Amino acid sequence: MNGQDDSRAAAAGDDATRSTAAPSPLAPRPSPLDPCPSSLAFTAGFVERVRASFGRQGAMALIGAQLLDVQPGYCSIALVPRPELCQQHGYVHAGILATLVDSAGGYAGYTLFPNDSSVLTVEYKLNLLAPAEGERIVAAGYVVKAGRTLTITRGEVHAERAGARTLVAIMQQTLMAMHGKSDNSA
Amino acid sequence: MNGQDDSRAAAAGDDATRSTAAPSPLAPRPSPLDPCPSSLAFTAGFVERVRASFGRQGAMALIGAQLLDVQPGYCSIALVPRPELCQQHGYVHAGILATLVDSAGGYAGYTLFPNDSSVLTVEYKLNLLAPAEGERIVAAGYVVKAGRTLTITRGEVHAERAGARTLVAIMQQTLMAMHGKSDNSA
Amino acid sequence: MNGQDDSRAAAAGDDATRSTAAPSPLAPRPSPLDPCPSSLAFTAGFVERVRASFGRQGAMALIGAQLLDVQPGYCSIALVPRPELCQQHGYVHAGILATLVDSAGGYAGYTLFPNDSSVLTVEYKLNLLAPAEGERIVAAGYVVKAGRTLTITRGEVHAERAGARTLVAIMQQTLMAMHGKSDNSA
Amino acid sequence: MNGQDDSRAAAAGDDATRSTAAPSPLAPRPSPLDPCPSSLAFTAGFVERVRASFGRQGAMALIGAQLLDVQPGYCSIALVPRPELCQQHGYVHAGILATLVDSAGGYAGYTLFPNDSSVLTVEYKLNLLAPAEGERIVAAGYVVKAGRTLTITRGEVHAERAGARTLVAIMQQTLMAMHGKSDNSA
Repeated sequence: MNGQDDSRAAAAGDDATRSTAAPSPLAPRPSPLDPCPSSLAFTAGFVERVRASFGRQGAMALIGAQLLDVQPGYCSIALVPRPELCQQHGYVHAGILATLVDSAGGYAGYTLFPNDSSVLTVEYKLNLLAPAEGERIVAAGYVVKAGRTLTITRGEVHAERAGARTLVAIMQQTLMAMHGKSDNSA
Repeated sequence: MNGQDDSRAAAAGDDATRSTAAPSPLAPRPSPLDPCPSSLAFTAGFVERVRASFGRQGAMALIGAQLLDVQPGYCSIALVPRPELCQQHGYVHAGILATLVDSAGGYAGYTLFPNDSSVLTVEYKLNLLAPAEGERIVAAGYVVKAGRTLTITRGEVHAERAGARTLVAIMQQTLMAMHGKSDNSA
Repeated sequence: MNGQDDSRAAAAGDDATRSTAAPSPLAPRPSPLDPCPSSLAFTAGFVERVRASFGRQGAMALIGAQLLDVQPGYCSIALVPRPELCQQHGYVHAGILATLVDSAGGYAGYTLFPNDSSVLTVEYKLNLLAPAEGERIVAAGYVVKAGRTLTITRGEVHAERAGARTLVAIMQQTLMAMHGKSDNSA
Repeated sequence: MNGQDDSRAAAAGDDATRSTAAPSPLAPRPSPLDPCPSSLAFTAGFVERVRASFGRQGAMALIGAQLLDVQPGYCSIALVPRPELCQQHGYVHAGILATLVDSAGGYAGYTLFPNDSSVLTVEYKLNLLAPAEGERIVAAGYVVKAGRTLTITRGEVHAERAGARTLVAIMQQTLMAMHGKSDNSA
């Protein structure tokens, strides 16, 4: 099921006291968290490790997910919507979005883990912002804090439709590194 | 990806100061939240509405989920694991568990909504507790607080294996009722 | 800021198709998670350790929180509301409720940790269900899954007013045991 | 209680296969969510409304929080640590951090709400990343999706110490606009 609450866009124009923000040139600008900082320590061969692990996931093949981009502390996964991935209103099911973004966050973290480790999702929280429909769904995950045991990520899911991108879901996630247990062990 | 941290069971016996709790008969007992209280106001025909909505979800058919039980403020959904539902270690993918328990919670809330409404997931948070494997996975959701606009649920996922049930995931979820938009509208 | 969405109680009576659930005696009853199971392995002296740690927390004294009950895998904390604990509408601030229930969950987990360890909150998620007001606020936390490294809890906050208890918040939390670092180390 | 897992910084250097990422100039760069986009519709007088509401919160005065910056869809709040705000290890209590960042997110949303409305926190999720200590703690919240009924925010808490800023907590939050109920109504 997908969250949506789009009535505001229409309603905004009704209120004469509303204005479009003209950002003051003097206003202090907060700096957003960088989803791909240049200072992360990663492990050589991380792209190959992520690709091999992704290929071992039956669920990724079932839904038709494709690995899009792997960088240190960053991963994105794409999906082309089709009816059997949808909920009762014809939008991509929230569980499918969750599958994508949970995996994107997990592999974002995994790029920074040692070779003889695997990655587990401890927990995540997902907000659904708009119906997911269009030509392509792209989920991206990035590391916010890398730790030896626990790694924290954020993720976003966008739907691409007719040349426009809509933010449809955001995630916050906790990962755990399993040291001494490589990803391809039984 | 599935969370697990099972080393404690083995480690517990190593510590001579550990004991198995002998609950004092005098100890005040907290009362757990009842997943199926008798005082919820529901809407006639709720079982049929839930079954019809479930049938419209392509994603439920894709993964092979089956509606197990529908009661006022309660819903459970079952799944038989198979390789294409799994992650790289052979356990049911967290995204599949999320799909199940998100839907169970959503339909638990929907049993209490008016006929001309539909249900959207605003957000949920999922903790993964143990690897999901076995003959059957059962996700249950139940309403904790029902509101006109927002309804809050909790959910649990158990794996059934060789006659034993293991708690593999727990969820906390916010739903939104979309009034005036029935579930089967385009 | 406190969440509330109480319009439903009033609205429920407007809908002729609503009924109060008469629970069928044949209906299968889901079993709720027990907030105080008898099978948890705990560590001797846990009540004293929790009390000592609680006493070292300046924030607990500042808000006037009192340790109410400590059992294996369970802890409750009470608070008497006063104006300086409130938000702009006169209800107890969500941050104060969070402080209470985060601590209750943390100490619930800590009862099961070894003596030479301390407890850290990795993350939690809090839903605010109703305004928090009354003679007393009680937050309870209980262990859902105990692990060597990570322990998962749930928590609930009730407001007591004129002899009635209202559920005002629910929580789901991840804790981490810091082995070899006792709670009273600098 | 505060989460920390700082062993990785020290451990990273031990692994000969680790490198510091030299970001490829050709690599596609994901764009982070902008915490202060220029396209948000806001309501005239929002700074005064936020300041007045902040002043009515007893809890903000109790902990010594100060409103730092208010922009359309953005708010930051500062705090100077002192012992009575701390947990047992001497770091600022997670509940205090939660109070700050919940309020920062809530007021970020409130800048976009109509005059005759107030803001409620439906829920939030907080990850604790590092111990909070230093000369000043700054919590910032920003709107990710603004809706008529629900608004979604993210937040970050930094600790400032000896000229350096450390990210100590991140939040994801759901707000609800209460239309027709102004913030200063009883």
